[in-house]
Amino acid sequence: MIQVAVLGYGTVGSGVVEVIRTNQEGIVRELSEEIRIKYVLDLRDFPGSDIEDILVHDYEMIVRDPEVDIVVETMGGLHPAYEFTKQALEAGKSVCTSNKELVAECGADLLSIAAEHQVNYLYEASVGGGIPIIRPLNYALTAEIIEEVTGILNGTTNYILTRMKNEGKEFQEVLRDAQELGYAERNPEADVEGYDACRKIAILSSLAFCRQVDYKDIYTEGITKITAADIKYAGALGRSIKLLATGRRDGDGIFAMVAPFMIDSENPLYMVNDVYNGILVKSNMLGDTMYYGRGAGKLPTASAVVADVIDAARHKGSTAKFLWDKRKLEVKDFGLCRNRFFVRMEGTKEEVLAAAGTYFGEVTPVESQEAGEYAFMTAEMKEEDFAEAAKKAGRIISRIRVK
Amino acid sequence: MIQVAVLGYGTVGSGVVEVIRTNQEGIVRELSEEIRIKYVLDLRDFPGSDIEDILVHDYEMIVRDPEVDIVVETMGGLHPAYEFTKQALEAGKSVCTSNKELVAECGADLLSIAAEHQVNYLYEASVGGGIPIIRPLNYALTAEIIEEVTGILNGTTNYILTRMKNEGKEFQEVLRDAQELGYAERNPEADVEGYDACRKIAILSSLAFCRQVDYKDIYTEGITKITAADIKYAGALGRSIKLLATGRRDGDGIFAMVAPFMIDSENPLYMVNDVYNGILVKSNMLGDTMYYGRGAGKLPTASAVVADVIDAARHKGSTAKFLWDKRKLEVKDFGLCRNRFFVRMEGTKEEVLAAAGTYFGEVTPVESQEAGEYAFMTAEMKEEDFAEAAKKAGRIISRIRVK
Repeated sequence: MIQVAVLGYGTVGSGVVEVIRTNQEGIVRELSEEIRIKYVLDLRDFPGSDIEDILVHDYEMIVRDPEVDIVVETMGGLHPAYEFTKQALEAGKSVCTSNKELVAECGADLLSIAAEHQVNYLYEASVGGGIPIIRPLNYALTAEIIEEVTGILNGTTNYILTRMKNEGKEFQEVLRDAQELGYAERNPEADVEGYDACRKIAILSSLAFCRQVDYKDIYTEGITKITAADIKYAGALGRSIKLLATGRRDGDGIFAMVAPFMIDSENPLYMVNDVYNGILVKSNMLGDTMYYGRGAGKLPTASAVVADVIDAARHKGSTAKFLWDKRKLEVKDFGLCRNRFFVRMEGTKEEVLAAAGTYFGEVTPVESQEAGEYAFMTAEMKEEDFAEAAKKAGRIISRIRVK
Repeated sequence: MIQVAVLGYGTVGSGVVEVIRTNQEGIVRELSEEIRIKYVLDLRDFPGSDIEDILVHDYEMIVRDPEVDIVVETMGGLHPAYEFTKQALEAGKSVCTSNKELVAECGADLLSIAAEHQVNYLYEASVGGGIPIIRPLNYALTAEIIEEVTGILNGTTNYILTRMKNEGKEFQEVLRDAQELGYAERNPEADVEGYDACRKIAILSSLAFCRQVDYKDIYTEGITKITAADIKYAGALGRSIKLLATGRRDGDGIFAMVAPFMIDSENPLYMVNDVYNGILVKSNMLGDTMYYGRGAGKLPTASAVVADVIDAARHKGSTAKFLWDKRKLEVKDFGLCRNRFFVRMEGTKEEVLAAAGTYFGEVTPVESQEAGEYAFMTAEMKEEDFAEAAKKAGRIISRIRVK
């Protein structure tokens, strides 16, 4: 029997208990032994709930209990999650987590502590909810040199953008609706400003390129400035606006960013709608592969945690190899990153196209969808050159990158 | 150093040599040791090629050489691939294969021989080319009870259907073109009649439902009867025609089939075009996940084989658990399987809808796209009831299932 302690009985933690209990039969078939939840740690009490008997408030009970094989960390945040994880690993217990902040910040460190103690630190659920993406990167694409990872990694923003597209509504209105429906948090900043996607692409880039990518180095732009008019233009161009998080190999370093992009229907990420996530991986022999599924939610995320628990149980006594070196990988100067831009500018068609020609070089005109403005798409250019040109040209209503 | 022998220097076999040589540096980083190709077995000679020195014609040299750790079987067909595989496993060598015929027919048998000898029989490349799908089913969705696996599993037919849709051409014309371009074989039967997809869904169903699914039990219909007019109707309905292979849990058994389906743009498989493959997995906690990529081709398929070689090298001395029981899983009577049907029938709108009402119950009329006929969609009905109704009604031009 494998004994597990769950730290934090919130959405994901309670989901882990539910998945283990619901699919126990299948899990026993996988492992040839049972998984038992011995403890749930939470500051709160849950009187009358079915974990009442196993609820504890003191982490020492868990970390000192030699019967606990695996610790599930679903607390979130950096502290005390970091200290608890470190103590568990040092006590010879594997840790499975859904905590993207901690993995992005301390993943390489915790992986090396795990290796020192012949246990595992597993974090499939930290990116893409239930979608298997950490495993493919780590175990399936092993014969590949990965060139780029680009994903729709945040379900809340994708839900908002999908509804803005389908209903023609403004951001604020859809956000309020999403909050009422529970698809967005009361404080939505981490999602809508792109911070959540930024942590996740830092993790995926670290794995794909085998060295530490610091999320603080990644240029991050959210979706709060996207308007119904922008969406209308995208539709007229046969495109969708998606919040993409991307890391791309470039020489010894990488370019990485999070920002809204207009993508066309040929892009496999085009059909990733609502709360779904999709991750597109480009590699040298295989070309494009994509992984799609529910990027958040109680049971999908919990399912990924439990898959890690099963993995940790299977590999008791040995440490799975993760190619995630502590040495920092250079995220190159964002100003040098090359992108195409869609630009809306105040003025008549003639005025806008004249200014475009002067400041942005050769552009593709885009039929106006609003009075008093005109639009165009630039060729690929450096971010710093675009910023400079935009400053000189002035009168820009909005600009969205194009992929 | 891990030493490998490659059986069969055809498309995939030569791709394996290329992938190992091109990505050697990354492979060494994964394994902390080198992979060396010690032998290539083929009946032919390849004078002047860069495998000339390691080419052998006698399998005994390989199977008796204790230095060979891993055998790559890329010969295809049942014999002598089966005998060679069995001998290698019995000699303590792991075997990695892209041979779907052999895996579908003898997978459970060869897996148990491998387990007896503490080696591995790995077959990621047998389904979906380079797309990681065997690993997710086996290692990632372990906390899940899988309800259904549905895939576009054959690149040739998907390429043909995509071009028929984009160009409005007939099947035969596009097939000829595909043959000239090398996307279809001179004898295209295995692809266009659905036999290839049938082997692959048998493998995926065996893994998803943990027991042997015999491909001979699976109802299989190809794409040879799909016409430009059918595609036109699909377009008018906002749908695409795709050759789907599907296995679905139903009580103690499964329903399984391969056939063209009309799917709508909400279906994640809708955007799987050209030679790409996509596999949609429905499971009880996670919901839908999809895996997308190049389903065929030299380097993508070879990349999956090499990922298996790396896996076999990593796990030398132990056997990975595969839940694929030799006991046969019942594929239920196809006549009892429930589907919706799109039907084109000769006659005027009034005649067709009257006949439809008499024989098929409540139907949804579909605007005619051709002179002298009308069309409709049925509600969900049993295959046997549909067949009976169609026989009685007569005058049916074509019928395509709808999902």
